[in-house]
Amino acid sequence: MRIALLGGTGDIGRGLALRWGRDTDHELLVGSRDPEKARDRAEAYAAELDERGIEADYKGFENAMAADRADVAVLAVPAYHLVDTVEAVAGRLDPGTVLVTPAVGMRRDEDGFHYNRPGAGSVAALAASAKPDDVPLVGAFHNLPAGGLADLDNDFEWDTLVFGEDDDATATVSDLAAEIEGLRPLDAGGIANAPEIEALTPLLINVAMQNEGLQDLGVQFR
Amino acid sequence: MRIALLGGTGDIGRGLALRWGRDTDHELLVGSRDPEKARDRAEAYAAELDERGIEADYKGFENAMAADRADVAVLAVPAYHLVDTVEAVAGRLDPGTVLVTPAVGMRRDEDGFHYNRPGAGSVAALAASAKPDDVPLVGAFHNLPAGGLADLDNDFEWDTLVFGEDDDATATVSDLAAEIEGLRPLDAGGIANAPEIEALTPLLINVAMQNEGLQDLGVQFR
Repeated sequence: MRIALLGGTGDIGRGLALRWGRDTDHELLVGSRDPEKARDRAEAYAAELDERGIEADYKGFENAMAADRADVAVLAVPAYHLVDTVEAVAGRLDPGTVLVTPAVGMRRDEDGFHYNRPGAGSVAALAASAKPDDVPLVGAFHNLPAGGLADLDNDFEWDTLVFGEDDDATATVSDLAAEIEGLRPLDAGGIANAPEIEALTPLLINVAMQNEGLQDLGVQFR
Repeated sequence: MRIALLGGTGDIGRGLALRWGRDTDHELLVGSRDPEKARDRAEAYAAELDERGIEADYKGFENAMAADRADVAVLAVPAYHLVDTVEAVAGRLDPGTVLVTPAVGMRRDEDGFHYNRPGAGSVAALAASAKPDDVPLVGAFHNLPAGGLADLDNDFEWDTLVFGEDDDATATVSDLAAEIEGLRPLDAGGIANAPEIEALTPLLINVAMQNEGLQDLGVQFR
């Protein structure tokens, strides 16, 4: 499968790229607004896995070019770039390309991080309103700490909540999640359930900040 | 320590009553608007533990009477009764009695359960605005499934997030949480962090409903 990581040079993009590179044989397209940066990162990810004796298939492209070739395109961009990014790649998405949002809007005050719920109801709903009609949107990978994900020496047992309106698309993304060692996809229903899932991310950061010895926190439902 | 469970005849109240009854020597005051019901439940909890060979100290009272005698008073009532309950017991709370809110406002639609955020910002903020100034408020026990908590045959490893503005009060509640076998209290900061914690409860219910084999879900941060 061809997976485009749009904004794949950022922290959550890096984590997903390295994990899929290590744990699967998927073709990984690292996207960025800057194609040169994308190519540099693709080389860096390949080099990082090569040091571990793993040959992984990364290619770097400008975001729209990466999306053009993908079966699944992950919007690994900050929430405030989400709609821009969807609009920038929309013309290149084949019908049925699965668009994935892990994005969370947050604001910080003196007490910690808080969910910054968009007027659309959720960041996922914002993305859904910007995407082409024939492209299904799936939410996943919201509640994974980027640092702990990207550190391949870190063995985790985390859950990720997968949601969307298209059952085939959510199944595709759940399968991709399950291929990452230690990651368990759980079905979280439809896009209307997105706000509570997106709000879990600032909570994880707050708990990590407040409790010594806990950092890079994920979550397990049990 | 004397712990009042206001609304202690309800499902989360029952769970906390049985766990503290089994795992600690605290004096447990079961509160209800109906004192007769409170006494009946107190007897029932004692009988349930007696069957397991455990002698536990339960007494039933009308809510205000239970609060009158308590070091810690848990508002184990639905969110829509929270302010009423605080106002009903306020005159009986000694200065320094720790008031605990596990309450979450939820609404349900066809997709699942959703956090019903009050205009005050959170259910905890609502409770804080209704309580006497000299009574500290602590949030805890939001994300525990009532059924799995009350089933003493169910061994769990769950986290509970404890938050508030008074460090001594949050420490007291964290200690009470840690005394329940399998429960780990985590510091979640101040009351401004309450919305994300309260919002986790409908998410747990949604995930339990969507995934076969998962029910009575709690959460572990890891």
